[in-house]
Amino acid sequence: MNETNLRILLRARPEGAATAEHFQAVEEAPPSPRPGEALLRHRFLSLDPYMRGRMSGAKSYAAPVAVGDVMEGQSVAQVAEDPTGRFKPGDWVLGGKGWQRFSAQPVSGLVKLDPDAAPVTTALGVLGMPGTTAWVGVTEIAVPKPGETFVVSAASGAVGSVAGQIAKRMGARVVGVAGGFEKCRFVRDELGFDECVDHRAADFPDLLAAACPRGIDVYFENVGGAVQKAVWPLLNQFGRVAFCGMVAEYQNAEPAPGPNLAQVVRKSLRLRGFIVSQHPAAFTEWRSTGGRWLREGALRYREDVVKGLDRAPEAFLGMLRGENFGKRIVEIT
Amino acid sequence: MNETNLRILLRARPEGAATAEHFQAVEEAPPSPRPGEALLRHRFLSLDPYMRGRMSGAKSYAAPVAVGDVMEGQSVAQVAEDPTGRFKPGDWVLGGKGWQRFSAQPVSGLVKLDPDAAPVTTALGVLGMPGTTAWVGVTEIAVPKPGETFVVSAASGAVGSVAGQIAKRMGARVVGVAGGFEKCRFVRDELGFDECVDHRAADFPDLLAAACPRGIDVYFENVGGAVQKAVWPLLNQFGRVAFCGMVAEYQNAEPAPGPNLAQVVRKSLRLRGFIVSQHPAAFTEWRSTGGRWLREGALRYREDVVKGLDRAPEAFLGMLRGENFGKRIVEIT
Repeated sequence: MNETNLRILLRARPEGAATAEHFQAVEEAPPSPRPGEALLRHRFLSLDPYMRGRMSGAKSYAAPVAVGDVMEGQSVAQVAEDPTGRFKPGDWVLGGKGWQRFSAQPVSGLVKLDPDAAPVTTALGVLGMPGTTAWVGVTEIAVPKPGETFVVSAASGAVGSVAGQIAKRMGARVVGVAGGFEKCRFVRDELGFDECVDHRAADFPDLLAAACPRGIDVYFENVGGAVQKAVWPLLNQFGRVAFCGMVAEYQNAEPAPGPNLAQVVRKSLRLRGFIVSQHPAAFTEWRSTGGRWLREGALRYREDVVKGLDRAPEAFLGMLRGENFGKRIVEIT
Repeated sequence: MNETNLRILLRARPEGAATAEHFQAVEEAPPSPRPGEALLRHRFLSLDPYMRGRMSGAKSYAAPVAVGDVMEGQSVAQVAEDPTGRFKPGDWVLGGKGWQRFSAQPVSGLVKLDPDAAPVTTALGVLGMPGTTAWVGVTEIAVPKPGETFVVSAASGAVGSVAGQIAKRMGARVVGVAGGFEKCRFVRDELGFDECVDHRAADFPDLLAAACPRGIDVYFENVGGAVQKAVWPLLNQFGRVAFCGMVAEYQNAEPAPGPNLAQVVRKSLRLRGFIVSQHPAAFTEWRSTGGRWLREGALRYREDVVKGLDRAPEAFLGMLRGENFGKRIVEIT
């Protein structure tokens, strides 16, 4: 094979904010598959907030990426060669080891994708890990009841957009929080949320309160920071918070103070964090349910595709600042 | 009846810390029972942290005491006269409207006590509302598994002392937190906790970490403040926190910042507040179970009895500062 393998490595662990300096692009020869492996040509890389955690050495639910290793991430790839015979050249698969142009991966870990059933990129977003995260978070963790007020932050994003649509189907009144007029318009008009509030507005806490005249029963937390602060006093008796992520704080050197927890007692609140990988059965469940809704036109999504693997670091850092509009994906050219 | 009715009223709502100035003692004639009521002579008044919340106008799970009304609280009383004929003079009962020498109360709301079954004061503490709170908090909210590390604050207090003993019976390794050498000795030697750590020690966070070498799986929160801060980083993956109260913060004018909640995601924590009154069936359940353990000598408790209703305000304020040693009760002389 004459092409080189562009790979993005973790150059150093960030202390405080991650920058482009913490990544390193290298060109190598494509790998050779070992027994049981196929050679993949990556087409799309998923960029997700959890990757910021993998750059740190801090104790977490998953081991960090080692300094000098290729950055971790899911990819939609085409099989270049498969000595095991399981896949044909050109087959579409979902795999890992995303931040590179080629990889050799055990065929046992690859999921075959049918490009006629749904666009292959949906395996990284609406029907993939982010969509499954929303499915678990809403149906198993937050569990809104009909008529309850359900608020979700990063509402135009990969997880929030799906979470709100699922909550809506469960009969909740759904209020999104997003950054800017265009995202809010999309959330209301395209996704069908009841309301969407712009967290960049100077009077955001008042706007949120006005959008939730009966308070907040369920909050699906994706961002932390100022949005969490505004949500906190609006939580109702027996309110629930599903903690999915706090992306607005991932670049802070020191954790910011959180809300006082006395109202957890006073209002008998339930706060629960979750990680989608702890719910392995949900992936196929959601692929089936969400896939049906998608074919029926009952599930909307938006992708934000950046072209060129060399731009992955800047696209990732921009996503941490909320610059993406929909599920951020890198097209590997 | 020649005796007067000493009553302690809420004189004004505290802004910030409550002081003796917020209470007012008055002497009135004893009330006359209306139809369906009995006249009670109060013998013991329960002092509990929740009363601080009732002094405030802030929105909570229960309505505040009105300014000028008698302070709310449970009392163990003897029936002085019962025109309904349900009780005999001298019968012991558990009733409300505690901060006074006499009251007239509907007989339907009174619980008869058997002074031969257990000391009557236990109806205010170990077998009463605080004990039931511990029962609900440990068996329904926190639910420690055998071998897990269970930490409880205010460990020598009315709720904490029972919570730790129940968790111990459920097979947990129980670590108490209490203020001072004597309380810690009592918690270890009398209550049988595995460890007790003095939160007044200068190196308290280090001592707590040393007492929990495998981290903290379950925290039963009674105090908030510095203890909560020290517990927070020690919580394990899938850790649970049962929020029963945050008494160390009840006298603050403004709520102090809380812990950053990012680790709720990272560690898949579950935080849950609860109020014992939401679990009405638990009261008789615990009276039966805890009463049996008490008779078997398998449940230990300590009462801190202050003599004289006129001293109730100072005894209450002292309790908020942690000056009590065991369940604080006022003997009404």
